[in-house]
Amino acid sequence: MRVVKSTFLSVWAEFDRLRVVLVAARNPLNIGAAARAMSNFGFRHLRVVSPYEAAFREARSAVGAAALLSNAEEYTSVANAVADCTLVVGTTAVGQRDLQHPLRRLEYGARIMRKQLGSRRVALLFGSERVGLSNQDLSHCHWLLRIPTHEANISMNLGQAVAVCLYELVRNGRAVQQPQSPKPATAAEVERATMLLLDALRASGYVKPRRAVSTEENVRRLVRRLHLSTRDVEFWLGILRQIIWKMEAGGGPQG
Amino acid sequence: MRVVKSTFLSVWAEFDRLRVVLVAARNPLNIGAAARAMSNFGFRHLRVVSPYEAAFREARSAVGAAALLSNAEEYTSVANAVADCTLVVGTTAVGQRDLQHPLRRLEYGARIMRKQLGSRRVALLFGSERVGLSNQDLSHCHWLLRIPTHEANISMNLGQAVAVCLYELVRNGRAVQQPQSPKPATAAEVERATMLLLDALRASGYVKPRRAVSTEENVRRLVRRLHLSTRDVEFWLGILRQIIWKMEAGGGPQG
Repeated sequence: MRVVKSTFLSVWAEFDRLRVVLVAARNPLNIGAAARAMSNFGFRHLRVVSPYEAAFREARSAVGAAALLSNAEEYTSVANAVADCTLVVGTTAVGQRDLQHPLRRLEYGARIMRKQLGSRRVALLFGSERVGLSNQDLSHCHWLLRIPTHEANISMNLGQAVAVCLYELVRNGRAVQQPQSPKPATAAEVERATMLLLDALRASGYVKPRRAVSTEENVRRLVRRLHLSTRDVEFWLGILRQIIWKMEAGGGPQG
Repeated sequence: MRVVKSTFLSVWAEFDRLRVVLVAARNPLNIGAAARAMSNFGFRHLRVVSPYEAAFREARSAVGAAALLSNAEEYTSVANAVADCTLVVGTTAVGQRDLQHPLRRLEYGARIMRKQLGSRRVALLFGSERVGLSNQDLSHCHWLLRIPTHEANISMNLGQAVAVCLYELVRNGRAVQQPQSPKPATAAEVERATMLLLDALRASGYVKPRRAVSTEENVRRLVRRLHLSTRDVEFWLGILRQIIWKMEAGGGPQG
């Protein structure tokens, strides 16, 4: 068992109970892409059912996600590939077929899968690139998952469909995770920047004497609307000092 | 403007304000995959900055998502590609680099983007397959988006990263969308099935006379635990009738 940190530690065990099952995949790039997405999102167990032999061999020999692919288990039937799972979920693009199964949108279906994964193995089946899962494949499934694609183009690339489904399984809706915002400047720091900017404006001739008071008030509000951080105040002070120095030096180049 | 239905109608306008920007993409398959994911999730505006010419030409000529690719706009700089957008978001795998930008997890960042998309154009930038976005590219961004990948393999395939980000933008957390569950059977229907099953058990010799009462109770509870639908009751009645007929016919093949 590998060492994983914080966010993933608590969910690692449940992810380890998922079996991603590719049925009759034809394209080695897609098999490789499925494996890569699994690796990206921390899933490890790939099963393939009747892949095109050459495709599977080629995928295994591709770079990246190699360990995951070489540990992939090969089966000759869907029944065997899902035998040790208590929940079997198929994916479908919902085309013309009249589905005999309950159909759940990914957002909702993933929630159910995650609950099951807390204690039991779940199989998630993906069909071949051309025709998806056959009706016979589907008859092994408890229900079907549908990625909420736009009706103008419902058919996703296999590797992308795997990535999206696995992402939904690991996503954390409560992850607000505000980035560490830089330390906001104090009023004194903001005022220091305001004063220096006013110095610069005076030196440049921007401030007209008879409007000096209102200009100062406008500039003070202008600077406050910038919501400067302590660090950026320092940045601006440096810029303004240099500009003021230049203007007062009378335009000659800085030594 | 195309005709779209229900779920997508309300969000169509906001999706139309997103600009997906691929910077220095090298692989035609990835450019094509990005376009396909956009099409899957109802986004239309692709921009490419300094793509490898041959790759872009090859991608344009590939099948699928052709319209979207042939309408893709080509730019020579990130500045020009994002000029008409009010929010510019970069994607990153967060490797070794010391990022100068606020970093938001996809789940949270997408919420902010969606809010902006309600009234303003937003650019979402993806870097090249090998090195991602450069520091110079990033300096055009207001903040960065991070897909919550597993630390063991943070680097996603470009096409898959695009698919996952766009999915997060269109996903609907309130989509519970319980599948239409089949009409549950009434108590009378369930009892009919129970009676017929008991008939079959008696005909088969399964019911021992001295345990008849407790067997009947057990079987009644057993059948109720199946939570049968009206349709499945009919299915089971047919099966049981046939089995009973066969047993009573004394084992001869059915005419």
